[in-house]
Amino acid sequence: MKSGEMHLKRRPVGVPVAEDFALVSVDVPPPGPGEVQVRNLWMAVDPAMRGRMSDAKSYVPPFVLDGPMEGPAIGEVVASEDPGFAPGDLVFSRLGWRELFNAPAGALQHRVRGTLPPQAYLGFAGPTGLTAYVGLLRIAEMKDGDVVFVSAASGGVGSIACQIARIKGHKVIGSAGGARKKQFLLDTLKLDAAIDYKAEPNLTKALAREVKAIGATGIDVNFENVGGDHLQAALALANKRARFAICGMISQYNVTDAPTVPRNLTMIMTKSLRLEGFIVLDHMDLEQQFLADMTAWYEAGLMRQAETVQDGLARSLDAFFGLFSGENLGRSLVKLG
Amino acid sequence: MKSGEMHLKRRPVGVPVAEDFALVSVDVPPPGPGEVQVRNLWMAVDPAMRGRMSDAKSYVPPFVLDGPMEGPAIGEVVASEDPGFAPGDLVFSRLGWRELFNAPAGALQHRVRGTLPPQAYLGFAGPTGLTAYVGLLRIAEMKDGDVVFVSAASGGVGSIACQIARIKGHKVIGSAGGARKKQFLLDTLKLDAAIDYKAEPNLTKALAREVKAIGATGIDVNFENVGGDHLQAALALANKRARFAICGMISQYNVTDAPTVPRNLTMIMTKSLRLEGFIVLDHMDLEQQFLADMTAWYEAGLMRQAETVQDGLARSLDAFFGLFSGENLGRSLVKLG
Repeated sequence: MKSGEMHLKRRPVGVPVAEDFALVSVDVPPPGPGEVQVRNLWMAVDPAMRGRMSDAKSYVPPFVLDGPMEGPAIGEVVASEDPGFAPGDLVFSRLGWRELFNAPAGALQHRVRGTLPPQAYLGFAGPTGLTAYVGLLRIAEMKDGDVVFVSAASGGVGSIACQIARIKGHKVIGSAGGARKKQFLLDTLKLDAAIDYKAEPNLTKALAREVKAIGATGIDVNFENVGGDHLQAALALANKRARFAICGMISQYNVTDAPTVPRNLTMIMTKSLRLEGFIVLDHMDLEQQFLADMTAWYEAGLMRQAETVQDGLARSLDAFFGLFSGENLGRSLVKLG
Repeated sequence: MKSGEMHLKRRPVGVPVAEDFALVSVDVPPPGPGEVQVRNLWMAVDPAMRGRMSDAKSYVPPFVLDGPMEGPAIGEVVASEDPGFAPGDLVFSRLGWRELFNAPAGALQHRVRGTLPPQAYLGFAGPTGLTAYVGLLRIAEMKDGDVVFVSAASGGVGSIACQIARIKGHKVIGSAGGARKKQFLLDTLKLDAAIDYKAEPNLTKALAREVKAIGATGIDVNFENVGGDHLQAALALANKRARFAICGMISQYNVTDAPTVPRNLTMIMTKSLRLEGFIVLDHMDLEQQFLADMTAWYEAGLMRQAETVQDGLARSLDAFFGLFSGENLGRSLVKLG
């Protein structure tokens, strides 16, 4: 059978462009012994993929050139030569950016066809959601009364972090780019305060203003997705012994010259702050508790998936580019099936 | 009785100069009810005092103008109107920068006249030593096999951090300014490797070279006293999940224009690093265990006090200025009694 795959043709310099990629048609043979054939229903794109397009050292290897890229996907088993999988099974894999594929059974994980829609496993009930959950609850050790500041709050991880903090009763300030996203934070996610950073000449002053507006003295937890000016503002407004979960620094990923860096790192010392980076793969022991919590919150109407959907693999680059142009709201998904 | 006091006359801009201070002679009356009269034997100066000379918000209030400055001191009780103290008692206080003073009994703490010399309580057996102890053992959670990088390794805190790490069997790389200090790290503190940062055009390359020379892949613990280029080098050479105890950023204290900042903060994320600032006052629960360890290590000949001593209050500013000019080796003390 035929399948489309999105290949990396060359390593982007700065902001990726369409010419860095190629949509390739391939033949997929029947699955061999121990293999399973899967038709992807949904795939997700996220900013961390930008890192794998470069060949710099990181915690995951770079994408190979002239091969399909990788990323989270949810699909349906079409044929199986492994006793653990049968046609119709819903499976999660890291084999996105392709429509149909064969994979060894070990590369696939079963997912329950229950109350959650399939694409939830790429959002609040998938690694994205677990990233928000781990960052707030384990890395930042969020505790009662903490004021929480989330950057890129309308994004895939950010929108879930905001909801978890709200569900647990915290005051939450979110930052996002543009009036549409700011309204989303206030109206849909019901945050206590929201900042449109594109409309603010000085982000530190804007955060100070919102902290005051909600009757707080500062922030206790920063869920950081952006870096640069956002990190500087969070350091400036941090209360003593605040904890920063450093999840991403999207403002720095496409930077080719001098990065924008916080000018106030001495506050780590003067306010006894803790900044900690993490990757969700180191915290999979929390997955079962996380899935139970998310399912319960979804069924209670407390957790919702914010998503921007493109239709078809040919549109997958639009989904990816939208991460950096700031057009996407919530989790950035591509519907494949 | 007469006493000398060193007063802050005006708030320094950039590097402090002699004209910012004044040596003042005052009369000290007999102690009142509940008061104790103390003659200081030793006082210490440290870089954090620079912060209190400014009126910026910090975890301790700024020094008052036209009054004696404060700092750790060890003294002997001369007269007492409090039942808890008697003439001859050895006492620790935060009332340095003066020769003789009256204080409420609550401002003084007894110290044992035992095997330790009195000035040890301003060094390895005092807050300086506890800072090194807390930073390595609690904040950085130093564990077997960790490679440790200490900046300002020949300084008061750094020289003790190096010794603790060596006593516990770790490989230690130290950085200090100048050939004399580098030799001190190698010959006296017996470190595995030492860097004279003044002789290195690129500190990151220098640290990479020394990491390789000791057969390591990177550093697991950074005891950070300097910031700026040192922090950048430590981030660059950090192993995955390395821990940074952010004790000081002396390179940034006198900066009046744009600070020198690390250009590679994204490594916090890509290598799951943890950076944590701390102040020793939040960790006094470790003091008894610390004193027991330090006394045992001193008696076993494993811990020694590195110190630079000035004689008399009139020379106290030389001790302080020496912190920033880089002349001092080890703990910077002034002998008063």
